[in-house]
Amino acid sequence: MAETARQIADDLRARISDDLMPGDRLPGEPALVRDYGVAKETARRALTLLVDEGLAVRRRGSGTYVREFRPIPRVANKRLAKEGWGAGKSIWGADLGDREFTVTDLEVYESGAPRHIARLLELNEDELVIVRSRRYVVEGEPVQQAISYLPAKHVRDSPIAQPDPGEGGIYRRLADLGLEPVHFTEELRARMPSQEESTLLAVSAGTPVVDICRTAFTADGRPVEVNQMLLNAGVYVMRYHLDS
Amino acid sequence: MAETARQIADDLRARISDDLMPGDRLPGEPALVRDYGVAKETARRALTLLVDEGLAVRRRGSGTYVREFRPIPRVANKRLAKEGWGAGKSIWGADLGDREFTVTDLEVYESGAPRHIARLLELNEDELVIVRSRRYVVEGEPVQQAISYLPAKHVRDSPIAQPDPGEGGIYRRLADLGLEPVHFTEELRARMPSQEESTLLAVSAGTPVVDICRTAFTADGRPVEVNQMLLNAGVYVMRYHLDS
Repeated sequence: MAETARQIADDLRARISDDLMPGDRLPGEPALVRDYGVAKETARRALTLLVDEGLAVRRRGSGTYVREFRPIPRVANKRLAKEGWGAGKSIWGADLGDREFTVTDLEVYESGAPRHIARLLELNEDELVIVRSRRYVVEGEPVQQAISYLPAKHVRDSPIAQPDPGEGGIYRRLADLGLEPVHFTEELRARMPSQEESTLLAVSAGTPVVDICRTAFTADGRPVEVNQMLLNAGVYVMRYHLDS
Repeated sequence: MAETARQIADDLRARISDDLMPGDRLPGEPALVRDYGVAKETARRALTLLVDEGLAVRRRGSGTYVREFRPIPRVANKRLAKEGWGAGKSIWGADLGDREFTVTDLEVYESGAPRHIARLLELNEDELVIVRSRRYVVEGEPVQQAISYLPAKHVRDSPIAQPDPGEGGIYRRLADLGLEPVHFTEELRARMPSQEESTLLAVSAGTPVVDICRTAFTADGRPVEVNQMLLNAGVYVMRYHLDS
């Protein structure tokens, strides 16, 4: 039976990606019962799978609809291009075009570094970091948490240690300090969220998260920031441009 | 408390990458309770974090062990560097160092193109593609399916339409045809697999897949190949190097 529900969900998923539009109504339970010759419970389970994956939403007493939230294209190269942050623009704004977003739960503080962060930043055990932690909310949905770590010895007395680092953000400020980031490494993993993480990003059961760890380096190879990001995989498409 | 669980997980993660070997037993809950002075629940949560991340596995009634399958680092830039395939090396070999892999279920055939592939390759509805489909198996585990689509009009009469395209693979052969790929776009999504996909990659429940769609372009911007890849997210770490 679970077999059949998954097969129906597979078919509906293909229709969502091929012909249906955001906001379109999916076939209801009675239609699925009729078309597939399955029990009502099986039809419901198929629709629940799509809701859990974040592809569909249920509206009480009305039916199940293709999710309206448009995916966010995250174009790594455009985000990190100096033309953007060098000109005072927000890296984050590069993703969204004219869609509105808010930053919530911003915290900036000095602290010890988690060990893997210390290793990436080439810090000794007793060296501290400035931590900048925040969540991004788009159209009412929390889509990403980002936690930046910067060596306190570099940035403690700069605007980077303040809640608002000013135009162009922390990369522009690092450049002001003679620590311009020019090379970046992004390391991505996809996995199911822990319970805490699924609360943080309000992801539905069955939606993975993407964990991106970015390290920023100066021209002479010094690591100056690690940004540990957690993305709701249901809303993001990650794009990279590469040359041979 | 959650902080503490994460800190313990951080410590164990560092030990996994620094001293422990695949298959080694991690400290059990009693040892963590003793060493960190935490509640049993916190110790358990720390170990669960590592299991969720695919770094450790639980064995019933025995404990938690470092996962035996080492993650595969997929370094996009190194894979696509011309120094590799231009010199006759396999793109795939770039990921694995000296680990063994086999290619299975290789199929090469001419066919119509799925609609989104036709759009990416700028083909009309009636234009055909050469499809190269295969699975990669590493140390007994199927880790990736890759399906390449190339316009049949370009490659029909070349070694690319043969099962073995020869040294350097299809990128080297495209260069031979005056269609050297020099720019690449990779688009990544993470999601739960369909039933068919979880069978194909033998992924365990609760393991997502990463869907990577790569388009290869010539210097004058012509798309010459689309490679639709499906990766077991539990075994891959994707890495990208970028410049500002």
